[in-house]
Amino acid sequence: MNIHVPDDILLMIPGPTNVPKPVLEALGSPSFYHRGAAFKELLEFCTEGLKKVYQTANDVLILTSSGSGAVEAAIVNVLSPGDKVLAIVGGKFGERMRDIARTYGAEVEELPVPPGQAADPEVVRQLLCDHRALLFVQNETSTGVRQDADLLAAAARDIGALSVVDTVSSMGGMPIPVDEWGLDSVASGSQKAFMLPPGLAFVSMSEKAWEAAASAKMPRAYFDLVAAKKSLDKGQTPWTPNVNMIRALAVSLELILAEGLENVWRRHHALGEACRAAVDALGLQLFADPAHASDVVTAVHSPNGLDSKELVSRVRDNHKVLISGGQGELAGKIFRIGHMGCCQLDDLLRTIEATAVELNALGFACPTQDGLAAAQGTYQAAMQ
Amino acid sequence: MNIHVPDDILLMIPGPTNVPKPVLEALGSPSFYHRGAAFKELLEFCTEGLKKVYQTANDVLILTSSGSGAVEAAIVNVLSPGDKVLAIVGGKFGERMRDIARTYGAEVEELPVPPGQAADPEVVRQLLCDHRALLFVQNETSTGVRQDADLLAAAARDIGALSVVDTVSSMGGMPIPVDEWGLDSVASGSQKAFMLPPGLAFVSMSEKAWEAAASAKMPRAYFDLVAAKKSLDKGQTPWTPNVNMIRALAVSLELILAEGLENVWRRHHALGEACRAAVDALGLQLFADPAHASDVVTAVHSPNGLDSKELVSRVRDNHKVLISGGQGELAGKIFRIGHMGCCQLDDLLRTIEATAVELNALGFACPTQDGLAAAQGTYQAAMQ
Repeated sequence: MNIHVPDDILLMIPGPTNVPKPVLEALGSPSFYHRGAAFKELLEFCTEGLKKVYQTANDVLILTSSGSGAVEAAIVNVLSPGDKVLAIVGGKFGERMRDIARTYGAEVEELPVPPGQAADPEVVRQLLCDHRALLFVQNETSTGVRQDADLLAAAARDIGALSVVDTVSSMGGMPIPVDEWGLDSVASGSQKAFMLPPGLAFVSMSEKAWEAAASAKMPRAYFDLVAAKKSLDKGQTPWTPNVNMIRALAVSLELILAEGLENVWRRHHALGEACRAAVDALGLQLFADPAHASDVVTAVHSPNGLDSKELVSRVRDNHKVLISGGQGELAGKIFRIGHMGCCQLDDLLRTIEATAVELNALGFACPTQDGLAAAQGTYQAAMQ
Repeated sequence: MNIHVPDDILLMIPGPTNVPKPVLEALGSPSFYHRGAAFKELLEFCTEGLKKVYQTANDVLILTSSGSGAVEAAIVNVLSPGDKVLAIVGGKFGERMRDIARTYGAEVEELPVPPGQAADPEVVRQLLCDHRALLFVQNETSTGVRQDADLLAAAARDIGALSVVDTVSSMGGMPIPVDEWGLDSVASGSQKAFMLPPGLAFVSMSEKAWEAAASAKMPRAYFDLVAAKKSLDKGQTPWTPNVNMIRALAVSLELILAEGLENVWRRHHALGEACRAAVDALGLQLFADPAHASDVVTAVHSPNGLDSKELVSRVRDNHKVLISGGQGELAGKIFRIGHMGCCQLDDLLRTIEATAVELNALGFACPTQDGLAAAQGTYQAAMQ
């Protein structure tokens, strides 16, 4: 092919993430029939694996779509036009949930949260009254903020509202005990902690969510989860799914379960701690409230006067490491380091070094070695 | 992985089809960023290639979904709830279009067509009056019937209605000059003639379709084609797309264009003619009206007293060739041979031999050699 796609770039963005070789091999294997015995076995294996990751006894449905498709499915399967919902909006993905719900006719009340901050569950509790659902992003990828999903879901539950949760960038990378926290419809995607390319998405539905689905009137066809559940019971999907991706998913789930979920979460937490310690040691400012900092993506204020786009380009071109800038209003103002999926300490150290070297080259003095030492030490301590 | 997916099965089903090695290699290459320069170049290359296949000057949007997602997009982007539409239903995929339109609130009038038959464009013309759109499947995969899409679209156009067309199993395998025929919104999918696994889908929109989109009130978020078009103009997609599949699509389009579109269509037509001649020579009955037989999939009546499921199993288990049974009411009653994508004469001959051998073994005498000779001779003649 004439178009050059660089294959030697370390992806330290909040998705797509690096894909392990065995997963790529499965992906690039021959295609196969989506209604045969092998597919049935794969689908059942993947569903069981996803239930472990989600920590739920309910089925997790597999969709052939981006994560945003799963978010749409999580919304439209439990709501009707005219339903009053409260949407927490603290970044781009919160906006997306709000917009999808509005598009389908929900009466959306918005709780704006300053970017970088988490919503106060007590404020949410006071706002909730006759709402049918609370919509929120558990891990806001655009700002690196983790919400208190357990407390938010409890506030919703206490008034009989559903919790509709976007965990696209976090599920698999941090413990999100869906049943224990009582999260009702929960969307995630393949290209983050699941170590796959984009193209599959997952939704769990609580019993309460299934009950809601029975009377929910928002129209859905491709994203009809009742149809998906009915097909799943036969070992199938309602529409021809991306069989190659599902085969690759089986391999990535095997890798995750072989490492052990607790170990995967510990590694992500250690990487998050290490990244934040390095940012501190480099004399940079974390963007997210430290009490709610995400363990899968770290957002950092761009030093005064530096357009983060410039930093991102230099880190990519001179070090073959890809980090992210900011989105929307935060473009140029923050940069983000993703540390999810198969990310290891070495990857993070290489990223910290590359970032520090380029900051120094751009005239923003920062102690590279201190950053590296802080990351290393913090990681080791957190892994104990 | 413990689950065994047989990789040595020749897929002669109407999708997923066999994927050429270079396409699989691209698919299994490292993942990459969906907002960078390489992705932009890939997306533009693929869009241009798809426009050639679609024979349209309008953009073809690439969606991360199954073909059914593109069908939904083709419908919901041009219609409003309450719109009166006419849906031609002659099989499972016609039913699906009807159901999607109903789900989103269209007032659907149905024109049932006996399975195996095409709709009479004159009848359609007489039925159309104040309809907003005509919905039909250009190539009904469940029956192997090709509609007269040009005449149907003309009938719609003459009363000012839109033509919404499912070409999921045919686009790329037969000439469908979208602009010349005036097809307004046209859906297709990756896992058929495009020689890819399932997981990407494509929709073209005519100028009239874009005008309709501006006022269409069916809700859409993930499948919002206006958003897709806006992103495409920046070399992006609104949601994180399956970048690996798009990289593979670029390779498959290169293969298609290197063979030459006219040659690809001629090969498919020759395979269709050859398959039908073989069925005749074996003493079997074609299911579809020969005047409207599809060049990408051939449906055959199961001989009296034979459940086609039994034939399909034996052909698979004893010959490693996968053909399809019937769907819905046709289950057990017909079998189907897909001949699309990278399918060559050798693949078809192997399939005919396997099918004939198993029919004989099951006690349904048929002259295997005659079938093979008919296929070979007819193919060669058609390729002249």
